[in-house]
Amino acid sequence: MTGESIPPQLLEVRDKIDEVDRQLVLLLAERFSLTRQVGQLKADGNLTAVDPGREARKLDVINALCQEHGLNAELVTDIFSQIMAEVVLNHRRIQNAD
Amino acid sequence: MTGESIPPQLLEVRDKIDEVDRQLVLLLAERFSLTRQVGQLKADGNLTAVDPGREARKLDVINALCQEHGLNAELVTDIFSQIMAEVVLNHRRIQNAD
Repeated sequence: MTGESIPPQLLEVRDKIDEVDRQLVLLLAERFSLTRQVGQLKADGNLTAVDPGREARKLDVINALCQEHGLNAELVTDIFSQIMAEVVLNHRRIQNAD
Repeated sequence: MTGESIPPQLLEVRDKIDEVDRQLVLLLAERFSLTRQVGQLKADGNLTAVDPGREARKLDVINALCQEHGLNAELVTDIFSQIMAEVVLNHRRIQNAD
């Protein structure tokens, strides 16, 4: 948009988006902190790192929430799949470190 | 984890993760609602759908927040890139509909 003047209304909405993004990152940090606890509990209890049933149910719930809120379910469930794949890697790292 | 007994502590942490995920989806819904407003403002003002400078700055900020909160910056910035790519598609749809 170089050289174009940016309407003040657009700047206001962008500020709100920046705040939402900050909250999204904070929630992701909270989520990874919680899944670290899960990883440690699984390592302590000699439980498997992956729980395909839980993952499938989670994606079903996310999909339903997307339908409810008019979100692109394919995009959002794909994002959650990426997050859960990272969680499994982290769980395996915890188990190998124990 | 079929056949394994799930420790109650793990169930508690999972409940917290489910709540975080619900909040993540709600925030994504809020973000796409805000970017729809941006798309309409851009269409009204005949502004271009993409603003590469804004996108690059956004990813820098996200990257810094990830470092601050110990998150995998590659994963999280990649997720935001996917969200922004969807936003650009939505902006183009709005412009073509006007």
